[in-house]
Amino acid sequence: MYSKELELAGRLADTASNIIMSYFREPLQAITKQDLTPVTIADREAEQAMRTLIEETFPNHGILGEEFENNNIDAQYVWALDPIDGTKSFITGTPLFGTLVSLLKDGLPVIGIINMPALNERWVGCEGSPTLFNGKSVQARPCSGIGDAWLYATSPHMFLGDDFTAFERVRKQAHSTLYGTDCYAYGLLANGGCDLVIEASMGIYDFCALVPIINGAGGYMVDWQGKRLGLQSDGRVIAAGEQALAEKVCDLLDR
Amino acid sequence: MYSKELELAGRLADTASNIIMSYFREPLQAITKQDLTPVTIADREAEQAMRTLIEETFPNHGILGEEFENNNIDAQYVWALDPIDGTKSFITGTPLFGTLVSLLKDGLPVIGIINMPALNERWVGCEGSPTLFNGKSVQARPCSGIGDAWLYATSPHMFLGDDFTAFERVRKQAHSTLYGTDCYAYGLLANGGCDLVIEASMGIYDFCALVPIINGAGGYMVDWQGKRLGLQSDGRVIAAGEQALAEKVCDLLDR
Repeated sequence: MYSKELELAGRLADTASNIIMSYFREPLQAITKQDLTPVTIADREAEQAMRTLIEETFPNHGILGEEFENNNIDAQYVWALDPIDGTKSFITGTPLFGTLVSLLKDGLPVIGIINMPALNERWVGCEGSPTLFNGKSVQARPCSGIGDAWLYATSPHMFLGDDFTAFERVRKQAHSTLYGTDCYAYGLLANGGCDLVIEASMGIYDFCALVPIINGAGGYMVDWQGKRLGLQSDGRVIAAGEQALAEKVCDLLDR
Repeated sequence: MYSKELELAGRLADTASNIIMSYFREPLQAITKQDLTPVTIADREAEQAMRTLIEETFPNHGILGEEFENNNIDAQYVWALDPIDGTKSFITGTPLFGTLVSLLKDGLPVIGIINMPALNERWVGCEGSPTLFNGKSVQARPCSGIGDAWLYATSPHMFLGDDFTAFERVRKQAHSTLYGTDCYAYGLLANGGCDLVIEASMGIYDFCALVPIINGAGGYMVDWQGKRLGLQSDGRVIAAGEQALAEKVCDLLDR
């Protein structure tokens, strides 16, 4: 199932990787978008190259990317692309940036890739199949409760207003909290390296790729109300090593 | 100058790296010390191996490490060792942990190594010489003011009480703030990838190795009062791409 789509997803990640690495740690002009996210020339070139490949291979599929306008996103199959997730890491020279590639069917993600170009690490998730990390299947780990959980979030400053208060309730109960990893934290969770990732202020292209990876490793990924993630979600997400832990977190966030 | 000591420092980093990587991402029992820092078997084995090499090579030198008791630290030359800086990263599978090796003369650091075993990256600093990153000399970058600065800190939770208030004054003025890198941020600063690192709650073995690396790249590293860092410092540090920026930060922290 999805073999042609998976083959394309892999090629998209390869193509983006080659472009992105040609700019990593090279002097370049970072420009600032209206929403203050830094983007780079690498980001735009990589997304354009991925869009071209999709249009050649599946001309009827839609495309939703961070850098350019949406294209045919009412189609049954839509690709969500984030060439450089972790642009701040990329700009400062930290290798923890990744390319996110996702295929949605009827608005829900069915394929996801996290590719880490500077680390040569890749997670591939596909509905109905075990998640692969560099070709080997991986498994999230059980966690008996929030007090035992190793928690990741990219930054405390991604939580605005009441979201910050809610996040702090969980953070203060968690065993340990680490910041700074962007998409990489979800890969670590799929590998059984941590227990929880809680984030907010995310775009569709930021979280769709992560869902099949977490689910295919036996984990559980939902929005802050415990609902499935897809095109209609509000950008607040929880990933957990098991469903029971995600439900405890939802309760605590909602208090 | 210091050629025999630099040779040993490199061997210490190599030895620690081999031990540490044999445990990275392998199941192991993380134990918790009284101060709640997680440490691992890898940490202890690596420090023991480094101590043995120092005792064989320079039996009159002192040793100060995170895992075992101080040894002869009133000597003119003292080695400060942190086998795994970034233990939380190590435990969760993130490659951003490093080995820190430093030689102090009369209480002030003269040699420093940041070695990143999972990334094959190494910074070497030595008083009077340019800082080397994987063998090539690197240079910190100028920055006209805090408003243009890309700032790193391992975690906002490392700042306690008034230190947090002071850090927040700088963080809110900075261009961008990133978390999660431990020692790696100082290497990025030496490479000209970021402008500022501000931290607190650090041990001697956490910051001594960083000073020759920052200074040898044309940067400036001091405590929060603007004083030189050494055995007597209180664990609050600033690293900046240039002296003028560090002085502005000191003023703002002290307000």
